[in-house]
Amino acid sequence: MPEKWFVYMQNQPIGIFDSGLGGLTAMSEIQRLLPDEDFVYFGDTARIPYGTRSRPVIEKYSMQDCKFLLSKGVKAILIACGTVSSNALDLLEGSFSLPIIGVIEGAAGRAAEIAEAGNGIVCVLGTEATIKSNSFVNAVNKINPHLKVISKSCPMFVPLVENGYTNKDNIAANAIADEYLSEIALQKPSAVILGCTHYPLLADVIGNYLPDSALIDSGREAALILKEKLSASGLLTGSGRGNTEYYTSDDITLFASLAKRFLGSDISMNTYKTDIENFS
Amino acid sequence: MPEKWFVYMQNQPIGIFDSGLGGLTAMSEIQRLLPDEDFVYFGDTARIPYGTRSRPVIEKYSMQDCKFLLSKGVKAILIACGTVSSNALDLLEGSFSLPIIGVIEGAAGRAAEIAEAGNGIVCVLGTEATIKSNSFVNAVNKINPHLKVISKSCPMFVPLVENGYTNKDNIAANAIADEYLSEIALQKPSAVILGCTHYPLLADVIGNYLPDSALIDSGREAALILKEKLSASGLLTGSGRGNTEYYTSDDITLFASLAKRFLGSDISMNTYKTDIENFS
Repeated sequence: MPEKWFVYMQNQPIGIFDSGLGGLTAMSEIQRLLPDEDFVYFGDTARIPYGTRSRPVIEKYSMQDCKFLLSKGVKAILIACGTVSSNALDLLEGSFSLPIIGVIEGAAGRAAEIAEAGNGIVCVLGTEATIKSNSFVNAVNKINPHLKVISKSCPMFVPLVENGYTNKDNIAANAIADEYLSEIALQKPSAVILGCTHYPLLADVIGNYLPDSALIDSGREAALILKEKLSASGLLTGSGRGNTEYYTSDDITLFASLAKRFLGSDISMNTYKTDIENFS
Repeated sequence: MPEKWFVYMQNQPIGIFDSGLGGLTAMSEIQRLLPDEDFVYFGDTARIPYGTRSRPVIEKYSMQDCKFLLSKGVKAILIACGTVSSNALDLLEGSFSLPIIGVIEGAAGRAAEIAEAGNGIVCVLGTEATIKSNSFVNAVNKINPHLKVISKSCPMFVPLVENGYTNKDNIAANAIADEYLSEIALQKPSAVILGCTHYPLLADVIGNYLPDSALIDSGREAALILKEKLSASGLLTGSGRGNTEYYTSDDITLFASLAKRFLGSDISMNTYKTDIENFS
């Protein structure tokens, strides 16, 4: 790699994308770990949710998402979305030459570690498309085939989070969590992977039904792996700007106001719109 | 209009579209009213929901939806979607020369009629984009400016319906309906417009909180108006085939299995896929 180009790349931003706002939980984590880096976040709010769609649609949308981030000159991409990580990681890695990190690897590693020290049972919670792909199950069993991995799709969790039903005592959220989790709780899994980046915001409610399990934030684990990989390949910047630009495929005001729920701060001044369907 | 072309048009199908499956409630109604007509239904399941998106996105998507139906040679279009009817009807009517019917007009007329005979209060329930547009409020007050029209956006109702939480006694559905409707119930509106075509499936739950109100199915009212208009312009067929083709922008199997929840029958043999983004 020519030296000049390498220095140029070091100073380029890291790209992060999700179907919408869930990825902001991973974003916060990577910003905390790498405060000197610049970031470009894309939330595909015009086409959210991804988790109920078929694999070909998820593949098509995530190819466009990556092409958009590449147009912003990113040096690496964090797929802050369990559904895309589960259904399109191989396609994306095969299509682009920069480092691309999904949320499967890190969470599977952490879960295996905890379950090995515990009762050997891992549970995966995710969207329908994520659970159908068996991505987390395969990743955990690749590390240790003796671990028992159970999984459950929780299609109502994303709408609950997006509409702010995240309070520990919320009746609707608890009724739905009860339906999804009460049978699983009987097995007392040592580790529970929150396989969708929206789910950490529901951790209090989920914890009501799985009090004996360690909840693993898949976005947080991915952020740790991204830091390691960029550091190992010398791609971290020394310039110390720490800027973040946010892009949405739908309305800026709508995006910024919902993002406040995830980030606690107002990002409307740094939010821009892009027409994602142009990137094909 | 040349006679030959007119006869050709009479035998063309009626187009119906929605962001997804909600419009099937209106579809069933129009099939019942016009058993001899052919229909082409398009559900944009690759981009559902529309109701949380901004007006420009809704306009863009619905223009593509109409262009797809026109490619199937339809003689009229029923917009079986409260969000599109509220945000894009004028645009669509201005862009295409065939009859286009939305769900506002009929429901507003029926609500005004009932409220005039009752306590003069109408309530509109709809998606965020529908309520923000004030479409139903304006339509009711255009008929009678003395009627009081209150409105409420119910963003969780679509995910509840799509995930089958429609039972009269469902805890989560009732908790959410309680939150949306308990204050409105104090005013005992004579007429409540179900301004989203998903909502009729939640009528039992909604009825728990509004026992004194007549619930108006906006898709059903639109079907009645469509029948009237086609009949008045001589555009009803006499050929008596009664075929329906279903198109989805995502997976056929997924669409057909969810459609069963709305229609009670298996339509997988008559369901096809289309790439909606090609129609621009």
